[in-house]
Amino acid sequence: MRKGLFISLEGIDGSGKTTLIQYLQDQLAAYPLLSIREPGGTAISERIRELLLNVDNIQIYARTEAILYAAARCQVVDQLIRPALDEGKLVLADRYLDSTMAYQGYGRGLDLQFLSTLNQLCTRGLLPDATFLLDIAPEVCESRRQNEQADRLEKEGREFQARVREGYLQLARKEPQRFYVIDADRAIKDVAIDVWGHVQLLLSRRRWPALEN
Amino acid sequence: MRKGLFISLEGIDGSGKTTLIQYLQDQLAAYPLLSIREPGGTAISERIRELLLNVDNIQIYARTEAILYAAARCQVVDQLIRPALDEGKLVLADRYLDSTMAYQGYGRGLDLQFLSTLNQLCTRGLLPDATFLLDIAPEVCESRRQNEQADRLEKEGREFQARVREGYLQLARKEPQRFYVIDADRAIKDVAIDVWGHVQLLLSRRRWPALEN
Repeated sequence: MRKGLFISLEGIDGSGKTTLIQYLQDQLAAYPLLSIREPGGTAISERIRELLLNVDNIQIYARTEAILYAAARCQVVDQLIRPALDEGKLVLADRYLDSTMAYQGYGRGLDLQFLSTLNQLCTRGLLPDATFLLDIAPEVCESRRQNEQADRLEKEGREFQARVREGYLQLARKEPQRFYVIDADRAIKDVAIDVWGHVQLLLSRRRWPALEN
Repeated sequence: MRKGLFISLEGIDGSGKTTLIQYLQDQLAAYPLLSIREPGGTAISERIRELLLNVDNIQIYARTEAILYAAARCQVVDQLIRPALDEGKLVLADRYLDSTMAYQGYGRGLDLQFLSTLNQLCTRGLLPDATFLLDIAPEVCESRRQNEQADRLEKEGREFQARVREGYLQLARKEPQRFYVIDADRAIKDVAIDVWGHVQLLLSRRRWPALEN
């Protein structure tokens, strides 16, 4: 068993991940915590992110893009996540390798075996101890942020998110021991309390430095 | 059998590759030719190259670097090499996937299985029909360009190049049907005539559009 604890959060856009992470960070304030949001977090991964954001006028294939994201993840894993786990920290990742499978694979149709091998290469098999999947129908997410950017989410976008959701559920079925499928079609407070209950149980199985309060 | 012909050139720094390629390009002027030099050749691969050249003050691990080179190669293969071969062109590559194995693997000590899988991912198994390995001892290369940059090649550099050379020879032993090991410790004119003889034989096995002269 590794010294630290590695938790990832997954879900389609608008599933409530960001709010949940803020809640968890508050609850976990007393723990040695590393909170990670891909693809950033290291200098080189930020450069790769910038590169990918500035490719409007140049041709970039989906496979090239996936490999670039893998390079960023490789550095994040080796420079930040592994050392944090070795030091016995709690690592909280806003998206990790399941996002690659769900978005690039199930969503965009890139070869799943290609992506799986790529994930394996860049993480050297480092899996989270627990992955919370915020499961919710795309239509619900859409209505939630109606005022924000509903116009951006057209029919095509909704079908894409539906494929991503289904992909996530398939991944969860393959690894039921790692995945916690959380019904996210509830008040965010209820979702947060639900997840926090599971996290507390996971925390109780590790030895942590003496905590304040 | 593929329509075009794919030839790569490999060898340690200073082995005479550049001069040989110029010679071959002249000889092949009448053929439909794509001459490639990694990692450049496409807009995104040039951007990746720039990124890798400007990382003086930031931390980048060898594995991250290898994956970034793989991203560049992926785009070059899919955007340039595959279409050229499909159109029946002759593709001449100044370094290809064997450089990754020789330099990053045998030279720098990165895991060979990792690099081999990465190569497989970014090329989807696209191997050259023939690979010319210009084999020469690092000391000879060094004395050749004495006036140029001998000061840069210190003892450490020579040992590194020696490992790269040995790596190349091991790769050639594993795939004798693809590799042509060329003794490059000769006058460059003799080396060029030697290689050109092999290339002519390879060309004769393909059907080419009617050539001028």
